[in-house]
Amino acid sequence: MIERNFPVREIRLYASARSAGSNITYDGRDFPVEEATPEVFSGLDIALFSAGGSITRTLAPQAVERGCVVIDNSSAFRMEPGVPLIIPEINPHAAFAHKGLIANPNCSTAVALMGLYPLHKLFGLKRFFAATYQAVSGSGAAAIGELDRQTRDWASGKPMESEVYPHPIAFNLLPHVDVFLDDGYTREELKMRNESAKIMEIPDIRVSATCVRVPVFRAHSVAVSAEFDQTVDIEAARRAISEFPGSELVDNTENNEYPMPLYYSERVPCGVGRLRKDTAFENGISFWVVGDQLWKGAALNTIQIAELLHANGLVGIGASASRE
Amino acid sequence: MIERNFPVREIRLYASARSAGSNITYDGRDFPVEEATPEVFSGLDIALFSAGGSITRTLAPQAVERGCVVIDNSSAFRMEPGVPLIIPEINPHAAFAHKGLIANPNCSTAVALMGLYPLHKLFGLKRFFAATYQAVSGSGAAAIGELDRQTRDWASGKPMESEVYPHPIAFNLLPHVDVFLDDGYTREELKMRNESAKIMEIPDIRVSATCVRVPVFRAHSVAVSAEFDQTVDIEAARRAISEFPGSELVDNTENNEYPMPLYYSERVPCGVGRLRKDTAFENGISFWVVGDQLWKGAALNTIQIAELLHANGLVGIGASASRE
Repeated sequence: MIERNFPVREIRLYASARSAGSNITYDGRDFPVEEATPEVFSGLDIALFSAGGSITRTLAPQAVERGCVVIDNSSAFRMEPGVPLIIPEINPHAAFAHKGLIANPNCSTAVALMGLYPLHKLFGLKRFFAATYQAVSGSGAAAIGELDRQTRDWASGKPMESEVYPHPIAFNLLPHVDVFLDDGYTREELKMRNESAKIMEIPDIRVSATCVRVPVFRAHSVAVSAEFDQTVDIEAARRAISEFPGSELVDNTENNEYPMPLYYSERVPCGVGRLRKDTAFENGISFWVVGDQLWKGAALNTIQIAELLHANGLVGIGASASRE
Repeated sequence: MIERNFPVREIRLYASARSAGSNITYDGRDFPVEEATPEVFSGLDIALFSAGGSITRTLAPQAVERGCVVIDNSSAFRMEPGVPLIIPEINPHAAFAHKGLIANPNCSTAVALMGLYPLHKLFGLKRFFAATYQAVSGSGAAAIGELDRQTRDWASGKPMESEVYPHPIAFNLLPHVDVFLDDGYTREELKMRNESAKIMEIPDIRVSATCVRVPVFRAHSVAVSAEFDQTVDIEAARRAISEFPGSELVDNTENNEYPMPLYYSERVPCGVGRLRKDTAFENGISFWVVGDQLWKGAALNTIQIAELLHANGLVGIGASASRE
């Protein structure tokens, strides 16, 4: 918010009773963290939610009832009809129909779509395969600490202990992000399918994802092979990626230039590279996309939604009528 | 060779002039490493080659001329017509037609095929997508040292220096294995396509791979989505994987059991898990396979080829006639 100069009149911080009582510094000033109750939302324009599913399912509607627009980072409401699921570069129009609650997408889906959507606009997306390489930041601060600690323990010859993940993550890979579902996919892999369909408005899209946790701290990477309705053209695809707000083309393989997660912390755009005509699809393109899990995959996209609402007068006193 | 009790009558070690002069211990005895010249191959039954492409292209035919059967780990002859490219569990029959030279496949291809081939036999493979998660061991001992050193430097607050790879590999991902080709794929990705077609004898198979180097020491992992001619059945697929020699099914997701590279060093079988009906293909299966890059991806498969030849009397004095 500070870096983007978000027009904050007043800021208030809330958490569960357990976390209330601490202080957080924002823009050089200390703010107390208070307990979140339904009443605290009265008089607020926007509430940025980033809590567990059950707290969100209770509190978010209570905040909306009190006239507050909730932008929610959890998966609780993402697939609910009537709740817009927004990536501002892709479907800003859908945000304008909000009824007080807007959902922020899953992190690996958001990163993948920053490469897929500009190609969809050109060629018409039918189907895609995604294999993810997901950073530990997606599991929260404790997981960042776990990779850090396991690596240091390894370096000093100590055994690696796992608390956040069921297995060590240092020098390892876990084909396991979120819980397993009955069909053998994980919920993370299902999100890639469902949220892609909703955000890009392609209800009959076919998606198969394999989501893998990798020993990387912060940026997510995705290998994508996509099939399109129309004949693809790689030069046109490259141009579309370069011109798409929120993505940058990093694709000079002759100079070993391609996006890598080590260089995508605290970067606004997602990096897209390795663009090539796919050899298994008739009208296909393969590519590699990398984006900051904490930024485009979470906080940045949330702020961008708030900016979109603010720029269009969709929050604040007097804006409620336009929400009907 | 020792672990598999390979029937060695005599062993001789050769290298380039630069590496000759050292000693290597085999089964408790020291052996001198001598300079490889064409003459040294006279009288040998089998030569296991693991050298660069240009040395191999010169020396291997010279060894064959002298009656020695060469099993070559390089990519120099893999796609040459008349040179069998062998995974003993898959196409042993092709080895019997050898003309003195047999090629050992690419490491990530070998691992992927230990999951794909049993499914192909059941349902008829048409097409597959593979995203690899390749260990640094595939780039040799210096790369193992580089991941080790970069990690220790990171732990002690020093900058990471890269010599083997163009970018740091610790806490990073490089979508770059082997050199880039004109169509935007890498040679590693092309190997996955070409070698899969040759080994499984499916000339019209369509393959699209994205090969990625990951901060893992030794085992390769591959996420595969495959399309088949016939209707797939996941229980039958599971059985086929369990019964396939060289693979083991590790697929109890309810107990967080799936193959992981940290546990596949020095293991003979490749581990296959995450088996599920693919949601983007009509008759598709997705899975995850992990195997030791240095074993099934290189040395083990080479020894298995030698065992196959030995068991079938295809090497040694008197066997040359059967090679015609």
